[in-house]
Amino acid sequence: MSKKITPLSEIGLFGLIEHIEKTFPKRNDNTKTGIENDAAVLATAGTRLVTAQSQLLEGIHFDLTYFPLRHLGFKAVVSGISDIIATGTKPSQISLTLGLSGKMSLEAVELLMEGVATACQKYDLDLIGFRPSSSLTGLSIAVSAYGFADDSTPKTRFGARENDLICVTGDLGAAFMGLQLLEREKQVMKETGQENPDFGGYDYLLERQLKPEARLGFLEQIKNAELTPTSMSLVREGLAAALIRMCKASETGCNIYENKLPIDHLTNTLGEEMEINPVVAALNGGEDYEILFTISLEDYQRIEKGGKSLKDIFVIGHITPESKGYTLETNAGEEIELKARGWGNEDVENKN
Amino acid sequence: MSKKITPLSEIGLFGLIEHIEKTFPKRNDNTKTGIENDAAVLATAGTRLVTAQSQLLEGIHFDLTYFPLRHLGFKAVVSGISDIIATGTKPSQISLTLGLSGKMSLEAVELLMEGVATACQKYDLDLIGFRPSSSLTGLSIAVSAYGFADDSTPKTRFGARENDLICVTGDLGAAFMGLQLLEREKQVMKETGQENPDFGGYDYLLERQLKPEARLGFLEQIKNAELTPTSMSLVREGLAAALIRMCKASETGCNIYENKLPIDHLTNTLGEEMEINPVVAALNGGEDYEILFTISLEDYQRIEKGGKSLKDIFVIGHITPESKGYTLETNAGEEIELKARGWGNEDVENKN
Repeated sequence: MSKKITPLSEIGLFGLIEHIEKTFPKRNDNTKTGIENDAAVLATAGTRLVTAQSQLLEGIHFDLTYFPLRHLGFKAVVSGISDIIATGTKPSQISLTLGLSGKMSLEAVELLMEGVATACQKYDLDLIGFRPSSSLTGLSIAVSAYGFADDSTPKTRFGARENDLICVTGDLGAAFMGLQLLEREKQVMKETGQENPDFGGYDYLLERQLKPEARLGFLEQIKNAELTPTSMSLVREGLAAALIRMCKASETGCNIYENKLPIDHLTNTLGEEMEINPVVAALNGGEDYEILFTISLEDYQRIEKGGKSLKDIFVIGHITPESKGYTLETNAGEEIELKARGWGNEDVENKN
Repeated sequence: MSKKITPLSEIGLFGLIEHIEKTFPKRNDNTKTGIENDAAVLATAGTRLVTAQSQLLEGIHFDLTYFPLRHLGFKAVVSGISDIIATGTKPSQISLTLGLSGKMSLEAVELLMEGVATACQKYDLDLIGFRPSSSLTGLSIAVSAYGFADDSTPKTRFGARENDLICVTGDLGAAFMGLQLLEREKQVMKETGQENPDFGGYDYLLERQLKPEARLGFLEQIKNAELTPTSMSLVREGLAAALIRMCKASETGCNIYENKLPIDHLTNTLGEEMEINPVVAALNGGEDYEILFTISLEDYQRIEKGGKSLKDIFVIGHITPESKGYTLETNAGEEIELKARGWGNEDVENKN
């Protein structure tokens, strides 16, 4: 990293745009006009365009005191494209809208965009829009993502049917626990003057928070295993919220099992240490970026047979009639009602 | 407007989404899955998708002390779809990403969305995404817009050629002068305790700032007149910035004439009153949302013959070789270099 600090006012709005444009090559043939024009033009390969938006706001979704800008750029892309993947579609383009506060220098924007570039390379994406503007109020990153579906039926959260099995693509609650750890260490450093945080052994949890991965491999998995999900959605604000929205959309209920929830052992360990119920973290923690989907009972054998190639897929419960509501069966055999997280991170409490 | 104030924390994130979803009907056949899913699915009618992003940030792009929320919602849509129109394409979908500060109530969001709904109705748009999140730092509104082009060549800013005529679709600088008026009255009311602002006769300038219109009619105009622009772009950050970017993209220069610049007489009058050069407002003021385009000399007769139907189109200069640079010929016959506005509104000064 260069030690040079160039105020954005020196390079100017269009200087910044030109500077960033140069560093993003075109990767997809159907990107006809990309970052170089205000409006991008995409050839409509396939019969359906799938598009989604997401945003990360300073103070809500990230704290720059511990979130490296390069990781933040990468995470913004993952956050943006995960909604596309969660329809069974490969994302191919993204565009970025930034609000840049006065404290951001050109070099800071470059670090952020290095993370974006790494993600674009890793996931084979074209950046087709880059629209910065100044912000009085901290850094904001809005991402639009695009993908073209080969067939005419990208999956939505609307297709779940009674008796379908409920599946997720990875462990839950780890990103939330990573955030708790970062917050705790920030506090400790502030109070004790200690210079370095102590993350002792919890690297995986930090990675889930700071360097989440998009589940692009899942598209390959379901294709190879010839799985046909009946519905799909992204776990962004916790499993409970995603599942309830899926059931509402599909006019069904659901029942999931505490002992089937994929929770990493580090999530459990840190949960114990910090007195946070890991099940609550899994249900309501957020930022997992795992895919929630349902399959018919007949498709279950394909998961069974898939063996190692489907090892990351966890069956956690099943779809019930709408009248049954949304329930979790605890290890003690108790049936409790699932509740979606409300407004923002602040609602996650250790209720159980 | 209901006097009821419902904190967003009461209705919750998904409550808000469900509440808003219901009020937006589907208008375009190619909106297959819209606001109801995280990712929207659009049938790829036509052969090219045109897409663009824009954002309005509190404190930078608007001041809630004088910007009615309903107008703000409308303006956000206009700002979003204007980039699509500026490629010669009819916009058909938008999606909205909001950052909502703690001071926003459900009723405030409803007012904002009323303005969005009015714009969607007026311009025949489907809202295909609504993604609110809480914000620590004021209201932010990011809009993604989409349109499908019938032919394979939506216009960009890249096609201008030497000797082409430079045209704009309406008067410039009025939105900027409207902003100056609002700021002045805010200051006066603060200093004198006066309860109501005095906008005496400048309604048009306020409208250009608070209720700008998208130039959808322009698509009809060029079609009827069989005009074929060689390049097109949106005037968002002032004419100078748009023109210079167009020339850079097309590897040309340009020369425009002060006495050809379309400036409303109210812009001139208020400019004199407030000692702001109206030409600077036109060149660097921003937020005009007019379309800048170039046509070949042969097409000039079509504008001449168009008469009343093309009355809003102003020829302001012509494209020159790249080596000539970007120039304005003043009324005094002097040739001065055009300069693009730099970073944000704060750079607009009364330099001339």
